[in-house]
Amino acid sequence: MKKFVNDPQQFVPEMLQGVALANPTMLRYVPEYNLIMRADAPRDDKVSIIQGSGSGHEPAHVMAVGPGMLDAACPGDVFAAPPSDYVVETSKLLNSDKGVLHIINNYTGDRLAFDMGRELAEAEGVKIGTVLVDDDVAVKDSTYTVGRRGVAGNFFVIKALGAASADGADLDDLVALGQRVNSVTRSMGMALTSCIPPAKGSALFELGDDEVEMGVGIHGEPGRRREKVRSADEMIDELLEAVVSDLPYSSGDEVAVMVNGLGGTPISELYLVYGHVHDELHKRGIAVGRSYVGEYCTSLEMAGCSLTLVKLDDELKQLLAAPAEIAARIF
Amino acid sequence: MKKFVNDPQQFVPEMLQGVALANPTMLRYVPEYNLIMRADAPRDDKVSIIQGSGSGHEPAHVMAVGPGMLDAACPGDVFAAPPSDYVVETSKLLNSDKGVLHIINNYTGDRLAFDMGRELAEAEGVKIGTVLVDDDVAVKDSTYTVGRRGVAGNFFVIKALGAASADGADLDDLVALGQRVNSVTRSMGMALTSCIPPAKGSALFELGDDEVEMGVGIHGEPGRRREKVRSADEMIDELLEAVVSDLPYSSGDEVAVMVNGLGGTPISELYLVYGHVHDELHKRGIAVGRSYVGEYCTSLEMAGCSLTLVKLDDELKQLLAAPAEIAARIF
Repeated sequence: MKKFVNDPQQFVPEMLQGVALANPTMLRYVPEYNLIMRADAPRDDKVSIIQGSGSGHEPAHVMAVGPGMLDAACPGDVFAAPPSDYVVETSKLLNSDKGVLHIINNYTGDRLAFDMGRELAEAEGVKIGTVLVDDDVAVKDSTYTVGRRGVAGNFFVIKALGAASADGADLDDLVALGQRVNSVTRSMGMALTSCIPPAKGSALFELGDDEVEMGVGIHGEPGRRREKVRSADEMIDELLEAVVSDLPYSSGDEVAVMVNGLGGTPISELYLVYGHVHDELHKRGIAVGRSYVGEYCTSLEMAGCSLTLVKLDDELKQLLAAPAEIAARIF
Repeated sequence: MKKFVNDPQQFVPEMLQGVALANPTMLRYVPEYNLIMRADAPRDDKVSIIQGSGSGHEPAHVMAVGPGMLDAACPGDVFAAPPSDYVVETSKLLNSDKGVLHIINNYTGDRLAFDMGRELAEAEGVKIGTVLVDDDVAVKDSTYTVGRRGVAGNFFVIKALGAASADGADLDDLVALGQRVNSVTRSMGMALTSCIPPAKGSALFELGDDEVEMGVGIHGEPGRRREKVRSADEMIDELLEAVVSDLPYSSGDEVAVMVNGLGGTPISELYLVYGHVHDELHKRGIAVGRSYVGEYCTSLEMAGCSLTLVKLDDELKQLLAAPAEIAARIF
């Protein structure tokens, strides 16, 4: 296995340690619960926002903790839900007078861990709300889900809720806002190569030298079909059509566009993809209000990308433009 | 070839088009000269800072154009120097009363193109200064260089000069500052896999399943030696020793640390690497003043990383902390 790994069992803790050491004033690592949290959280004038999910999707979500984004991320091992007792302890540690919000990507394991964690934490007096993210249009049910999967669109839910919670929004309003963001967010991804989970040490799935997996999941789950590799524009047209046709769009609508790298695709290719998406949206009369090109929600070193569109309104535009700071930054 | 590419000959222009479309108010794409520039440049109250080099290292350098960073990037094709007439036209287009500064990574092709471009532009009345970057300690001479190569440390030269030029520094002062930043900056990289240049369509070099190239160049040039893959900590210790031992350090010194992904390595692994570097520096009495973990100067989709240390002083800390904005950002 050619990766920067020491002991595969220690991969996640060693990564979390690095994240905290690189951000000593902003973040705190709590090894007992595999937890990254804002050093200044919880605050009683703000709902605490927690995301939990498997690791291996970085920067989602441990590098998305900071002012204006998450108050804490409670990751499991690579591609595994966090244990429910860590969810309980994280919720208690982040408890605030205004409550705690769980953001959960729609995977059976994550939902079970957070349902149980919520019940136990509520029994200890923590007020909790839940927002479920299921933006992936690729398939109806999947290997690890009943219903659609939650993928890179999650970033927009976090960003909007992070901004609104920083402004003092109440728990119920945040739950409603999160559901609203999710309802206007659609994504689909495609893989050019498999990823290599550290504990497995080899490719998670086999893909021929001339094949791509259209609609792949961020854990390597099958998508809609295997196809022969084609030109970038042809492949991206298929992603775009799937995403655009899943919501009613009219000429004059405005969107946020994310071209998300799955881990192994260079940012040069992602910008080439973005250029084509922008042109195609323009032809449909859809304007780009905000653009995001880079790695947001990955699948380790998988080559490929996903496309996310968010239908914008004035409130959403304002929330997405609000200041924020996280570990995954360039300066 | 499994990449997001249409016509390999159009790979760079299509990428540049995407960069400009994603940043419509900040940047302008000038297709005649393969140029990305700030939309508000040139300004006569500021030296214009230009970086030229081959493409394939993104975000360096076309995604490093913006307020507080570069005024323009003048890229060649993938891994190729820009034509000297583009250097001339870029220098003329960015001409300012305070002059134009060329930042050049030390590669023979880039130096030739910029030497000739400078001479021709000066003949047309443009005042030009040059800063050469050669931070890579791996080898003395290399495939495309006499002397050391310029790699990811380039980011710090750009950042410091971008900040100082925004404050109105003169051309001579900027040349001296750039040389000073380069003189305290040292890097070395290692490859786990080769990259695939679009026009070649296959791996640039062969590396065994259990081999790494220690000291690799960002164009896949040979480094110090091939080694068997080992634990992350053992491999990173070798990078760190090479970089630290190349400058005199004393206990109490402060550094900026960059763990730069070469394109195909997930950010989770880069943070694991950062954690170890931080600990090892601490053991040597060297404090981390600023940290940078992510992709800054890549080699397409090469898996691997480089390590850069910059010895800090008060002026440098202030320049690195100054505000800046570029295409490669997360929000």
